[in-house]
Amino acid sequence: MLSWRLFLLFPLLSLSFSEETPASHVLPRPLIIEYPASAKELDGEQVRLQCDSWRFAVEANNVNPWKTIPQECADYVRAYLTGKAYGFDLDKVSNEAGIYAGSVELSGDGKDAWIFDIDETLLSNLPYYAEHGFGLEVFDPVEFDKWVDKAEAPVIQPSLKLYEQVLGLGFKVFLLTGRSEKQRSVTVENLIDAGFQNWDKLILRATDDHAKRAVVYKSERRDEMVREGYRILGNSGDQWSDLLGSSMSIRSFKLPNPMYYIP
Amino acid sequence: MLSWRLFLLFPLLSLSFSEETPASHVLPRPLIIEYPASAKELDGEQVRLQCDSWRFAVEANNVNPWKTIPQECADYVRAYLTGKAYGFDLDKVSNEAGIYAGSVELSGDGKDAWIFDIDETLLSNLPYYAEHGFGLEVFDPVEFDKWVDKAEAPVIQPSLKLYEQVLGLGFKVFLLTGRSEKQRSVTVENLIDAGFQNWDKLILRATDDHAKRAVVYKSERRDEMVREGYRILGNSGDQWSDLLGSSMSIRSFKLPNPMYYIP
Repeated sequence: MLSWRLFLLFPLLSLSFSEETPASHVLPRPLIIEYPASAKELDGEQVRLQCDSWRFAVEANNVNPWKTIPQECADYVRAYLTGKAYGFDLDKVSNEAGIYAGSVELSGDGKDAWIFDIDETLLSNLPYYAEHGFGLEVFDPVEFDKWVDKAEAPVIQPSLKLYEQVLGLGFKVFLLTGRSEKQRSVTVENLIDAGFQNWDKLILRATDDHAKRAVVYKSERRDEMVREGYRILGNSGDQWSDLLGSSMSIRSFKLPNPMYYIP
Repeated sequence: MLSWRLFLLFPLLSLSFSEETPASHVLPRPLIIEYPASAKELDGEQVRLQCDSWRFAVEANNVNPWKTIPQECADYVRAYLTGKAYGFDLDKVSNEAGIYAGSVELSGDGKDAWIFDIDETLLSNLPYYAEHGFGLEVFDPVEFDKWVDKAEAPVIQPSLKLYEQVLGLGFKVFLLTGRSEKQRSVTVENLIDAGFQNWDKLILRATDDHAKRAVVYKSERRDEMVREGYRILGNSGDQWSDLLGSSMSIRSFKLPNPMYYIP
């Protein structure tokens, strides 16, 4: 039988206070807390465990709507995104999606579809988010639009690999993005510079869509595809609002994104 | 601009070969590969990164159907489950679900429902899996049923907390499990011993359901609840087949489980 100590979470840290000076009884002094070395390490481990849990919960869609990453996870999220781990995760999801895509029997009538989201799915906004605390700052749509207008978002290489693979297999590719119709030309320019081509349709938010939650807007567009006779066999996105709702894909692939949440 | 080295994945290890002996040009010899110390560390880090990626891909439902955990992740999965991380993850999902449950406006007509899966959701089979490599062995239904019949599966404490919370808020609680109808009495005994009570209905697999995939069986049971007028507001399960399909819950909560996959 295993011991169930694992459910005794967040043990209280024992704090040791600095030794009192003779004057300490007389003069007011700031409260100085000194952690013993082992408690410091425990604290570091605690933060890592908490941030790991938070990231897992984000990726599994367990976290309630959030506006910024937890303050204490700022270093953790930066390290994840600028180190190797994010790349490993992107590669893994691309590979699994590719295996699935290759295993699907296509009808050959041109109605087999794969949907890709754009931001943090095909194109990376890391250069922008690196300047804005990797999700620590509240999203600023004006600043972000300036970045989008530069059309400089780099390719997410494992997604380009998958993109070319599904095209090669004979899927119709739909790009379904939360970007505005006004950003069509910069988006096309950025996509082409990044190596993407031959998509069937690029769907952006029309004026009527701006007030809608992403999950509603994207569901409506998928509903249309289904009405037009398409079979949505695959869907790749970094937000659960890309993947859930109506006319869901047979299989969905969730790309990692610990920086922001779109409802 | 960030460097995009993060997309250069799985760098090839530089291998150093043992110095050749004078006889090496003459006799065939086994190829001996010696990693320099730094490469050994790199290898360890590589495995950790790969297993981290694998685990996140499992939890986000990106991995194609699998029968056992990857061989190279055996130590990683054991450490995750027997250390603190699994407990942190269970606690996180319970807390987020509790916040959501508390925020929902209930109708008060007794038709607001929350569904819980049982294995690895309310009850833990870790004592069984600890004896079977934590997912490294192919699932053995005969052996597993013997374990279930003991009715000794320990409570998952953070789930009991959530369970009592949603009951207290006025939800009807349905338990929807892949266990067989034949295991009803041991299941009830185990649940009660573990502290669960006052569920509205315990739904187990009838004879007709045994050939069905879990996702189909569970969808059919949810369809019935909806036909009976229930609003499924929350659903907690450790498998995506508990959560996806038809009559999906308004919000789903995915508990961690890196040990096995049920389609």
